[in-house]
Amino acid sequence: MWQLYQFPLCPFSRKVRLLLSEKGIGYELWRENPWEERDEFLARNPAGRTPVIENPERGITLVDSRAICEYFEETVDKAPMINGTAANRAEIRRLVALFDENFFGDVTGPLLHERMKKRIILRQPPDSRVLRESMKLADAHLDYIDYLIDHRPWLAGATMSLADLAAAAQLSVADYLGGIDWSGHEQARSWYSVFKSRPSFRPLLSERMDVIHPPSHYADVNA
Amino acid sequence: MWQLYQFPLCPFSRKVRLLLSEKGIGYELWRENPWEERDEFLARNPAGRTPVIENPERGITLVDSRAICEYFEETVDKAPMINGTAANRAEIRRLVALFDENFFGDVTGPLLHERMKKRIILRQPPDSRVLRESMKLADAHLDYIDYLIDHRPWLAGATMSLADLAAAAQLSVADYLGGIDWSGHEQARSWYSVFKSRPSFRPLLSERMDVIHPPSHYADVNA
Ligand SMILES: N[C@@H](CCC(=O)N[C@@H](CS)C(=O)NCC(=O)O)C(=O)O
Ligand SMILES: N[C@@H](CCC(=O)N[C@@H](CS)C(=O)NCC(=O)O)C(=O)O
Repeated sequence: MWQLYQFPLCPFSRKVRLLLSEKGIGYELWRENPWEERDEFLARNPAGRTPVIENPERGITLVDSRAICEYFEETVDKAPMINGTAANRAEIRRLVALFDENFFGDVTGPLLHERMKKRIILRQPPDSRVLRESMKLADAHLDYIDYLIDHRPWLAGATMSLADLAAAAQLSVADYLGGIDWSGHEQARSWYSVFKSRPSFRPLLSERMDVIHPPSHYADVNA
Repeated sequence: MWQLYQFPLCPFSRKVRLLLSEKGIGYELWRENPWEERDEFLARNPAGRTPVIENPERGITLVDSRAICEYFEETVDKAPMINGTAANRAEIRRLVALFDENFFGDVTGPLLHERMKKRIILRQPPDSRVLRESMKLADAHLDYIDYLIDHRPWLAGATMSLADLAAAAQLSVADYLGGIDWSGHEQARSWYSVFKSRPSFRPLLSERMDVIHPPSHYADVNA
C-alpha cells in the first residue's frame, strides 16, 4: 500500500492526491508537519518537504510532487494526465510549473505563512499588508485562468490534465485560507465548480486543518 | 532553428543549454533580461521568466526549463538524460527539483540577487550577511553531493542524467559569483571537474556577464 506523508493544507500533496484518486490508486494518509523537521522524515527526504510517498512492500520512496506525478503517469495507464503530442505535454508541464511555482510563490505560500504558520507555530497575528498583496496577485492569476478557459475547455487543452489538478490544488488551499474572491471570475469559477464535484475532490474538501476554519463557500459544490 | 531566450547567469537556461548540446541540437542564443519585463517577452511567457525556447518555423514556444528538458527528452533519442526504470526516472527528477528549487533558493538565487541584481540594476552593495548565509548553505549542498558521489558514479545513479546537468548548471553560476568553496569537497570537486571538461560545458564557461567577473579558478578545467 502506498503511504503519503502530507498535511491537509499542503497544495503539492493535494495535487498528488487528486492524481492518485483519478487513477484509482489506493493510498494511506500519514500526517507530516514538515516544519517539525523530524529525523525520520528527513531520512525519507533530505529536502524536508511534503509530499513524500512510500511503498514499503516494494521498497520505493518518491519525493517531489512533480516527480511523483510523472511516476504514476508512467506506471498506471488509467486516466492519463500528461497526454497528447510532445507539444501538448510541454504545455501541461508549463502550466503545472506556473501553478506550483508562481501561484504558490505569489498566493498560497504567503497565505500559508500568514494564516497557518503564524497561527499554529509562531502564535502571531497575520500581516494584513501581505494578505492584501496575495489577494491582489490571486486576482491576476484568476484573470489568466479566465483567459485560458475562454479559449479551451480545460486549462491545457481539450482534456483534463495535470495542469487542472495543479491549479485546483493551489486554488483549494488559497480558498480554504480565505484568499480567493471569485466575483468577476465566471470562467474560473465554473471551471473550479466542475472540479469541486468530482469524486477525487470530495475527500479534500471535507478535511479540516487543526484550529483553522475555511469560509462557508469553501466546500459548497454550488458556490 | 531553435531560439533560446536567456541571460548568461540564468542557471535554468544553462541546464537547457547543457541538454541541447549533449543531444546535439543546434540553437541560437537570444539575450533576455527578465527583470526588464519587455512586453514581447511577456507575450512569450506570461510568467516573465527565462528560459523560453522557440522554433518560429514550427510555431512552437516552450516555457519552463523542466518542461523544455522533458520535451527534448521525448523528441530526441540521442543522449537520454531521464533514463532507466520508472523508479530511476523518479530519482533523477527528485534531484533536478532539489537543485532547481532548494539549491537555487538557498544559494544561486540569493547570490544572483546580491552580486548581479544589486550591481547591475539596483546599484547597491551586496549584503555580506546574506552572502555568508548562502555560502554556508552551499557547503551543506556540497556535503550532499559528496555523499551521493561516494555511493554512485553520477548523481542519480550509474549514468549521467539530467540531475547532473541541473546540479552543474546551478553550481557553475554560484561558482561564477564566488559563492563556492570547494575545499574539503573532493568528491563534488572531482565530479564537477569531469563536467567542466565536457564539450557541452565549454561555451558556458567562456561567457561573461556584463561587468561581473568570475574568480580565477572558474573556467580552469584543472582547478
Ligand atoms: N517542489 C516540491 C515543493 C514541496 C513544498 O514546498 N512543500 C512544502 C509544504 S506545502 C514544505 O514541505 N515546506 C517545508 C520546507 O520547505 O521546509 C513539490 O512539488 O513537492
Ligand atoms: N521554473 C522555472 C524557473 C525560471 C526562473 O526562475 N528564471 C529566473 C532567471 S534565473 C527568472 O526569470 N526570474 C525573473 C522572475 O522571476 O521574475 C524554470 O525552470 O524555467
